[in-house]
Amino acid sequence: MSKIMPTTDPFDDDKLREECGIFGVVGVTDAANFVTLGLHALQHRGQEAGGIVSHDAEQGFNSARRFGYVRDNFTSQSLMETLPGPLAIGHVRYSTAGSKGPTQIRDVQPFFGEFSMGGAAIAHNGNITNADALRRELIERGSIFQSSSDSECIIHLMARSLQRNIPERMEDALRRVEGAFSVIAMTRTKLIGVRDPLGVRPLVLGKIGDGWALSSETCALDIIGAEYVREIEPGEMVVITADKGVESIRPFRARKPRFCIFEHVYFSRPDSIIGGRSVYETRRQIGVELAREAPVDADLVCPVPDSGTPAAIGYSQESGIPYAMGIIRNQYMGRTFIEPTEQIRNMGVRLKLNVNRALIKGKRVILVDDSVVRGTTSRKIKEMILDAGAAEVHFRIASPPTAWPCFYGVDTPQREKLLAATMSEDEMCAHLQVNSLRFISLDGLYRAVGEAEGRDRKQPQYCDACFSGEYPVEPADMIEKGFKMKTAAE
Amino acid sequence: MSKIMPTTDPFDDDKLREECGIFGVVGVTDAANFVTLGLHALQHRGQEAGGIVSHDAEQGFNSARRFGYVRDNFTSQSLMETLPGPLAIGHVRYSTAGSKGPTQIRDVQPFFGEFSMGGAAIAHNGNITNADALRRELIERGSIFQSSSDSECIIHLMARSLQRNIPERMEDALRRVEGAFSVIAMTRTKLIGVRDPLGVRPLVLGKIGDGWALSSETCALDIIGAEYVREIEPGEMVVITADKGVESIRPFRARKPRFCIFEHVYFSRPDSIIGGRSVYETRRQIGVELAREAPVDADLVCPVPDSGTPAAIGYSQESGIPYAMGIIRNQYMGRTFIEPTEQIRNMGVRLKLNVNRALIKGKRVILVDDSVVRGTTSRKIKEMILDAGAAEVHFRIASPPTAWPCFYGVDTPQREKLLAATMSEDEMCAHLQVNSLRFISLDGLYRAVGEAEGRDRKQPQYCDACFSGEYPVEPADMIEKGFKMKTAAE
Amino acid sequence: MSKIMPTTDPFDDDKLREECGIFGVVGVTDAANFVTLGLHALQHRGQEAGGIVSHDAEQGFNSARRFGYVRDNFTSQSLMETLPGPLAIGHVRYSTAGSKGPTQIRDVQPFFGEFSMGGAAIAHNGNITNADALRRELIERGSIFQSSSDSECIIHLMARSLQRNIPERMEDALRRVEGAFSVIAMTRTKLIGVRDPLGVRPLVLGKIGDGWALSSETCALDIIGAEYVREIEPGEMVVITADKGVESIRPFRARKPRFCIFEHVYFSRPDSIIGGRSVYETRRQIGVELAREAPVDADLVCPVPDSGTPAAIGYSQESGIPYAMGIIRNQYMGRTFIEPTEQIRNMGVRLKLNVNRALIKGKRVILVDDSVVRGTTSRKIKEMILDAGAAEVHFRIASPPTAWPCFYGVDTPQREKLLAATMSEDEMCAHLQVNSLRFISLDGLYRAVGEAEGRDRKQPQYCDACFSGEYPVEPADMIEKGFKMKTAAE
Amino acid sequence: MSKIMPTTDPFDDDKLREECGIFGVVGVTDAANFVTLGLHALQHRGQEAGGIVSHDAEQGFNSARRFGYVRDNFTSQSLMETLPGPLAIGHVRYSTAGSKGPTQIRDVQPFFGEFSMGGAAIAHNGNITNADALRRELIERGSIFQSSSDSECIIHLMARSLQRNIPERMEDALRRVEGAFSVIAMTRTKLIGVRDPLGVRPLVLGKIGDGWALSSETCALDIIGAEYVREIEPGEMVVITADKGVESIRPFRARKPRFCIFEHVYFSRPDSIIGGRSVYETRRQIGVELAREAPVDADLVCPVPDSGTPAAIGYSQESGIPYAMGIIRNQYMGRTFIEPTEQIRNMGVRLKLNVNRALIKGKRVILVDDSVVRGTTSRKIKEMILDAGAAEVHFRIASPPTAWPCFYGVDTPQREKLLAATMSEDEMCAHLQVNSLRFISLDGLYRAVGEAEGRDRKQPQYCDACFSGEYPVEPADMIEKGFKMKTAAE
Repeated sequence: MSKIMPTTDPFDDDKLREECGIFGVVGVTDAANFVTLGLHALQHRGQEAGGIVSHDAEQGFNSARRFGYVRDNFTSQSLMETLPGPLAIGHVRYSTAGSKGPTQIRDVQPFFGEFSMGGAAIAHNGNITNADALRRELIERGSIFQSSSDSECIIHLMARSLQRNIPERMEDALRRVEGAFSVIAMTRTKLIGVRDPLGVRPLVLGKIGDGWALSSETCALDIIGAEYVREIEPGEMVVITADKGVESIRPFRARKPRFCIFEHVYFSRPDSIIGGRSVYETRRQIGVELAREAPVDADLVCPVPDSGTPAAIGYSQESGIPYAMGIIRNQYMGRTFIEPTEQIRNMGVRLKLNVNRALIKGKRVILVDDSVVRGTTSRKIKEMILDAGAAEVHFRIASPPTAWPCFYGVDTPQREKLLAATMSEDEMCAHLQVNSLRFISLDGLYRAVGEAEGRDRKQPQYCDACFSGEYPVEPADMIEKGFKMKTAAE
Repeated sequence: MSKIMPTTDPFDDDKLREECGIFGVVGVTDAANFVTLGLHALQHRGQEAGGIVSHDAEQGFNSARRFGYVRDNFTSQSLMETLPGPLAIGHVRYSTAGSKGPTQIRDVQPFFGEFSMGGAAIAHNGNITNADALRRELIERGSIFQSSSDSECIIHLMARSLQRNIPERMEDALRRVEGAFSVIAMTRTKLIGVRDPLGVRPLVLGKIGDGWALSSETCALDIIGAEYVREIEPGEMVVITADKGVESIRPFRARKPRFCIFEHVYFSRPDSIIGGRSVYETRRQIGVELAREAPVDADLVCPVPDSGTPAAIGYSQESGIPYAMGIIRNQYMGRTFIEPTEQIRNMGVRLKLNVNRALIKGKRVILVDDSVVRGTTSRKIKEMILDAGAAEVHFRIASPPTAWPCFYGVDTPQREKLLAATMSEDEMCAHLQVNSLRFISLDGLYRAVGEAEGRDRKQPQYCDACFSGEYPVEPADMIEKGFKMKTAAE
Repeated sequence: MSKIMPTTDPFDDDKLREECGIFGVVGVTDAANFVTLGLHALQHRGQEAGGIVSHDAEQGFNSARRFGYVRDNFTSQSLMETLPGPLAIGHVRYSTAGSKGPTQIRDVQPFFGEFSMGGAAIAHNGNITNADALRRELIERGSIFQSSSDSECIIHLMARSLQRNIPERMEDALRRVEGAFSVIAMTRTKLIGVRDPLGVRPLVLGKIGDGWALSSETCALDIIGAEYVREIEPGEMVVITADKGVESIRPFRARKPRFCIFEHVYFSRPDSIIGGRSVYETRRQIGVELAREAPVDADLVCPVPDSGTPAAIGYSQESGIPYAMGIIRNQYMGRTFIEPTEQIRNMGVRLKLNVNRALIKGKRVILVDDSVVRGTTSRKIKEMILDAGAAEVHFRIASPPTAWPCFYGVDTPQREKLLAATMSEDEMCAHLQVNSLRFISLDGLYRAVGEAEGRDRKQPQYCDACFSGEYPVEPADMIEKGFKMKTAAE
Repeated sequence: MSKIMPTTDPFDDDKLREECGIFGVVGVTDAANFVTLGLHALQHRGQEAGGIVSHDAEQGFNSARRFGYVRDNFTSQSLMETLPGPLAIGHVRYSTAGSKGPTQIRDVQPFFGEFSMGGAAIAHNGNITNADALRRELIERGSIFQSSSDSECIIHLMARSLQRNIPERMEDALRRVEGAFSVIAMTRTKLIGVRDPLGVRPLVLGKIGDGWALSSETCALDIIGAEYVREIEPGEMVVITADKGVESIRPFRARKPRFCIFEHVYFSRPDSIIGGRSVYETRRQIGVELAREAPVDADLVCPVPDSGTPAAIGYSQESGIPYAMGIIRNQYMGRTFIEPTEQIRNMGVRLKLNVNRALIKGKRVILVDDSVVRGTTSRKIKEMILDAGAAEVHFRIASPPTAWPCFYGVDTPQREKLLAATMSEDEMCAHLQVNSLRFISLDGLYRAVGEAEGRDRKQPQYCDACFSGEYPVEPADMIEKGFKMKTAAE
């Protein structure tokens, strides 16, 4: 009768999921402790597993990989004592979309390789679009893969490089790799950071005391008390040592950057700073734009917690309609839960969210959410709100319709599962049975991130493939598996 | 160098902590599953441990008690299958303030006793103010206590009652008990609920299908899809069976009710309804009152997440100063964390909260928090805000100064640890080194909960002992241990 | 296809199982560590669970109870540090035969009670034959039982005693108790030991440095380096303090002792000394008697490991037939195992035992075992031996036929499951399909334990109820449940 | 005061330790369950960790690796269900002698590699004497090693082989490997077994139903009910499929075999059959030879449990001095234990062994042990026996003095730690302070294993390097690390 049902991490339901967060530090005492803190601050980028590699002059390289949250694994004294030394890097991950079966612990990064000139570890955020072809080639030559991860190609390419030091082997390897990658690596003495030529995924540099940190986002610099220095630039490699500081290299041919616009909309934490802009402020501004593009007469503006909050504040401020917490999130939500009987519907959502009934009753409610992926959660939330007696429900979405999968390091459903891949805005509104449903326009979104003129259709300023279907790097492996690119007609 | 430091559940830092949540249900299939859901919704009332007792006609009474969150313990199929039957009750708890040493699993409720006419289990929210005296008397007569809990007295008093059925034994027992108590109990067929004559702690009745539920708060009725029927009244006992429904009894002499006003301010969930009022709306109204009582010229109104949010919204709406998320809470906070080095200050707070630096810089910020207990967290938050470049910091507190400990089921520091016990409002402002600090007045608080005339000084409508020092029930055990009541002079 | 099958602790298969071992020590540093060692040496008396209570002047009483082996639970530094002080007692147990369902941790002894004059803990080896009646009476008076254990009666009787100190309350309680009991108890300063008037279960006194130890067997004195002083006598109570030493009391009317003869045959460890006799030597002597009573022409004498070994050595020495290890025991046997397919028969035995094929082939083999209970294992061993090519199989059993259940602290199958309750020796031989089967006679057994004249039929020197059906204490609870005593005709 | 002390697995104390046991099966339902049973029977060859790889047509290769006993890990239904299919291999291991730091789970075999023609897994018993050189060469070419194990070289050599099927790649790889190896490998359809040209380590073939099994020892064939077919011959490779049966290949140049004589003395289980001889009978015969070579007048012959037992029986039978269990082993011994105080000496031994005091007192005792390595345990046992009042203690050792380390898959202390490397027999006797100490001669040992003429000094029939210092394969890696071979003068 009853059964276990998988649910509902804070960011879990019907959301696109960032696959990784990476962090590294050099030149501090007990570097692995700092990496623990940094990964904790990046936990929203990957909740399934985490790993840390450290290096100590006496004890060499050490590593630990665990399933579950950073806070539950990398906080025991006994574990952290096995990770000594002034240099460490770490990684948090979601499961890879394409992998069959559950993640194995051997899939958890950082990956480590011993070369003739010493060892190196790498942590990768992004996705290699030619990984299948590279893997076949490497196996043919006699490499033995340990994981199902695309990222493992990098370390094998490094092992086979003819170069005589590790940073050069890394350049060598990354020139064979296509797709999106921000990589943090370490040797016995060096902390290395690289971004792909388009700079799809973020990577920032911080200063802490006499040491240096690399991180996916600035919020992880804040937690260790590091000062934000700058972003690693698209196509840049930095090689950092405790004594010589930061050396900058340009291993790739220069290209026009295409940073992932969805980092602004959803993936990054609101207290992070991207490209000099507050993510929170960008999201609030999206709400402002949305209120201008899609006004509606109503009594309350309510966020869908927690990711819709900044845009809802903006929408309220621009529209003058009062902001209210119409939906309350349970702070103690976990990963799985028992459904007591099949009669109890929508339990996955109800375990996490509850409607503020006394507030909502009889009101015309604007619900602001960050995105609609398959539409499953939106439908349940609408039902909760109506059950509580709302007079009208208007959805306002802080991103354009998500109509195309991401192949650059974000876990997306197959295209046919995306609601916007098969329905127009009006069809979605009818499907969800709400009084109105409006998405921000692509130009409105570009304005909110500071492009006053909106999107440059010839040379878009960002990667917005999930909205536009225009992929800046050809997804070679996926095309081989049958994915159809957007045609001229579409 | 590094060490484990205890931190910081969402509601943990420098807050008063409710000690218990209770829930029971009768007349449903697999009642324990419903109790799991109900306790999950009441988790904010007690996070240390939880227990469930169920009864099944064939398998009799069964119980399970576990440390940790409900979601992590009472969601495994294998455990829940050991708790069959249509009748179950449960309890979540914090550690008892007075207990020496860590909680033992035997301290976790519900408590169970086998009597000659059958077994009974009880779950207690509140605190028995004459428990020490009762325990001495019971031991003298030959009872063997298994726990250090005050609540165990009830089951021993029941075991020794001369009455021939369990509800009457329970009446008998509770007439010997002083203090605050909401109790849910069960026999083989009956679900029983009682509130003390003053009705200090909450207890509500819900209807689910052909069955009935009792709960500390209405939010736990929502999660199981039960309909809210009414509050159990102060001094009322209800005896509920699946077939005969709810029977109401009045075991105690009638008294004027004194519900805990802090349930409105902080303990209860904002989506619960108390006395017909939305808790969220009451808190928003506190913010409105606070803006009227204590206005200040500033750029932003920011809540201290998450409990300050409704009052901050109200303050913003009344004052016209924009509401903003100046402090961001980490969603993945756990219980303990390593401090990497002693140089990193304020880590306990920083692991949980991060300032939205780009937003705060150069701004005059009003921070709205629900209460100030020892003042430790307020001080750290102020430092974080100033480090991020705020021009001014103004604290507005949504409760009056907390100057007296609670002896009715809330974990409070000793009186001398309470900042307001030793300092005036101005002294606290100077101590915290902020630009201004203002608490809502006791009358303002009473207005926000709907008492248009404010507090009735002769016959206060609520228990507000923590603010006023006027205790509606004499704390006999504590006086014996040396606690000094408020003198006429104070 | 495959399934988990319960198996086969070293002493598990088709054996009678002692239900408890008890140990206590006073006057040493970190007494709980000594109790851990003592219980480890007594693990053969109870493998399901163990518990230790200690007392320290500053920290009062502390306890820990765990399922599983002593070595796996009571050896962690972190646990043992919670059990400080110079006085401690402990208990290892099997599950109680009569209990429905699995053992709960609350059934694990020592039991503890807080009385008005201080706390006391008790550990009980034996069985109370009037426990059901006592429990009913105590519940009627208002006691609340926490366990399903018969032993809990003792602590409740003590709680209700009118005496003003704990040893006297214990005397008071034990005078109400019928059956077999060796008890070790402790107060804040005293270690107490008692044996029932018949002295059915063992209890010995040892000296260690300035302190004292009480133990079920002498082998547990050896492991802590204590010197064996003497047995506690039947009907004696000793009250021991670190400074005043051993005080002896006689709380019961004197009776002729009836020590359990099966302790000599099987329960006790071969390196223990009982009544001044080496258990090993007694068992070897049983083999000698058996060779005289039941000679047979054969090639090899093989023990069924490990308990048949001493008798097999004796049989070989008396008969002149070479002793050999025809069956080898796997050292790494655990509690459960998967059966790969149903085709693989006898796996429970084969996981534990393997025949030494090259040795057995073509030989006439005498197998010496300690007892036959249901006959299930004997049959499987016979099949293994024949599969390996033995020419003949002769069973020689080092105890008389086990035809009656024990009600004095040993876990026995119901009478109808005992092979010897329904079959004669010849019928058993035919049932097991072996060339011959002979048990030692009751007189032969008495001779082996040193009674040159054999068994005194009028006043037997031992309790041998499991062989003779003559119960020295009436099993009142069992008779109430329908057990039929031996009739004059039988 | 107290501390955790590592002790004392049954075979742990001051013994040489076999490093591995291997087992594989093809052509049965749920092959992994059979491997679990087989590894359980081989647990004495390696207790630290175990691993199983299986292959199923639908689910491909699956693997599980765990620390601890087979019985505790590979017996859960949930784990075994992850290892489906008719073909599986497994491995149990001790830690590698040379490894720095604790074993990682990635060091646990079988090792797996994906090649362009499909995957393969290998399990290795033995030691590769040129592993360091091979590893350097492979890393130089770009292989990435995952473990610190010498055995991983084999799978990398296979990955780089130019051959187009896996058995041929395996031949290719093993021709580069020096040292001792018995290997079991599997592809998707084939079970493969190989022994090195000298046949140092054992490997046997069995038949089970329509399937086949490979095992280190015959005792593991017995447990699954398989029939023993024959030994894999030195230098032979067998390739087995369910449908075509066993194909035999000879990849290496033929050499005169040199099987490890210590397998007879100690490593193998007494119920195994090696070279057509019962291991038990060989050990008993060693006792007979020892009684002839080194007679002494005494009262009792006692084995040091359990490995000295067969030789003690033989010694008793040849000498006519009665065999007795003078030392009793605790059946419940585990891995670690707390030492209660420093005063309690010899606790490591006493937790495991106890003297049968009543038997030993006043007796002249011959103790028969299998070997003396560092002499530490022998000394403690002697003290225990004397403490118990023995009149004389005579050690008789069932192997010659162990004076040289093994480099072929056995964990031996460095040469200078071996008592016999620095002392003569008389010096050892004086060092141990016993009445006499005698080892069996090398010729006596050869006679006991069936070589009537004793050892052939020109072409020894066995590898006896640990006794003679004559290494049949040059230990190249160890010589590079500074090991000094025996000189002509020695």
